[in-house]
Amino acid sequence: MTAPEAAPPSERTRIRRLAQRGHYDRATLHAVIDAAYVCHVAFTDDHAVHCIPTACWRDGDHLYIHGSNGSRMLKLAASRAQVCVTITHLDGLVLARSAFNHSMNYRSAVIYGEFDVVADALKSAALDTLMEHIAPGRSREARPGDANELAATTILRIPLDEAACKISTGGPEDDEADLNLPVWAGVLPLVLQPQMPVVVAAPRGTPDYVERWQNATVHRTAVDALTSTTS
Amino acid sequence: MTAPEAAPPSERTRIRRLAQRGHYDRATLHAVIDAAYVCHVAFTDDHAVHCIPTACWRDGDHLYIHGSNGSRMLKLAASRAQVCVTITHLDGLVLARSAFNHSMNYRSAVIYGEFDVVADALKSAALDTLMEHIAPGRSREARPGDANELAATTILRIPLDEAACKISTGGPEDDEADLNLPVWAGVLPLVLQPQMPVVVAAPRGTPDYVERWQNATVHRTAVDALTSTTS
Repeated sequence: MTAPEAAPPSERTRIRRLAQRGHYDRATLHAVIDAAYVCHVAFTDDHAVHCIPTACWRDGDHLYIHGSNGSRMLKLAASRAQVCVTITHLDGLVLARSAFNHSMNYRSAVIYGEFDVVADALKSAALDTLMEHIAPGRSREARPGDANELAATTILRIPLDEAACKISTGGPEDDEADLNLPVWAGVLPLVLQPQMPVVVAAPRGTPDYVERWQNATVHRTAVDALTSTTS
Repeated sequence: MTAPEAAPPSERTRIRRLAQRGHYDRATLHAVIDAAYVCHVAFTDDHAVHCIPTACWRDGDHLYIHGSNGSRMLKLAASRAQVCVTITHLDGLVLARSAFNHSMNYRSAVIYGEFDVVADALKSAALDTLMEHIAPGRSREARPGDANELAATTILRIPLDEAACKISTGGPEDDEADLNLPVWAGVLPLVLQPQMPVVVAAPRGTPDYVERWQNATVHRTAVDALTSTTS
């Protein structure tokens, strides 16, 4: 991802530490969200500040979350409480010659604002979008929610208007004076990697999305082998 | 991990939704923290609630974070603001026959309280512990922080006294009536997987921790192959 042209949409989204890592354009934000299954939602109630992980997905310029009507977080978020939603992908550990210059590679997004409640008539379509995010094609296979299930589910969405991404990539940045120290330097990359599917029932064989998941494990192995021989 | 004997240490750590997934024992908490490189810290200032990802590590019964003295989060956290620190490992997508029963497998920990500032005299040892967490053995190799670098670094720690874990494992839990639907059911597992190290400099060959990282990529491939042939 290249350096953004966009400016921070508000004071609280302006990245101050390592400002050169800040990105405020919509394409970068969408990419960070779309790569995620989970976000962290921070909010306060009368007692404390809370930070709760929950499934998330994007449709257009909104991030969505959902859950049981009984969820404290959803009840509070539905009441227009101010929230901060954060997504973080850890991409690697960056090992410099000096302890001080160690760092991590990551892609993160922070979204400020308030959630809106998704109207009953739009719930079913919103949940289909979640299903397609998790397993493309599956929304036509799984039994859709019935009236009771939909009624028991709260869906919330927050606009992506006040958001910022922070991204760090690349290798270690050592001080000039440290470059000749006899210390290993490099990156230990990490990826949230699909593992072989655990099959409980496959009455009509293996759906495309399961096959693609399976192939992603094989593909990654091939990439590893390639990297291994060239490093 | 087996069902815990321990009770929630406070009202705000008592897990209410899906309470059977709650764990309050120290061993489970330590395991969830030790598997993490990153936590999310939620806090409020005069303007908003914030949720910021940052590196974390554990020593005994404290979770540690660190950063530049100039960091807004660290300055605020150092002033004894109430925080909520959350760690989440996503372990898989759980695909049930019905849309409603879809879920995720995860291990998460939530810690409430206030951070303490780690005294100057203890900073160097604390950073060694971080280094050993990231790359065991490397704290004896990398150039340690000098006086200026240590002075520019704030280290904070929070006691693990008020914490709770929530863990979900296993396969889909479908309604009895859905069990014979012709829908694929199972788990799409995920793991934060080491990838092949990117070597920038290896003046004394490959250290043990880099070799172990490399082996972890190979080992996982072998496990995949095994799972593949047995499923």
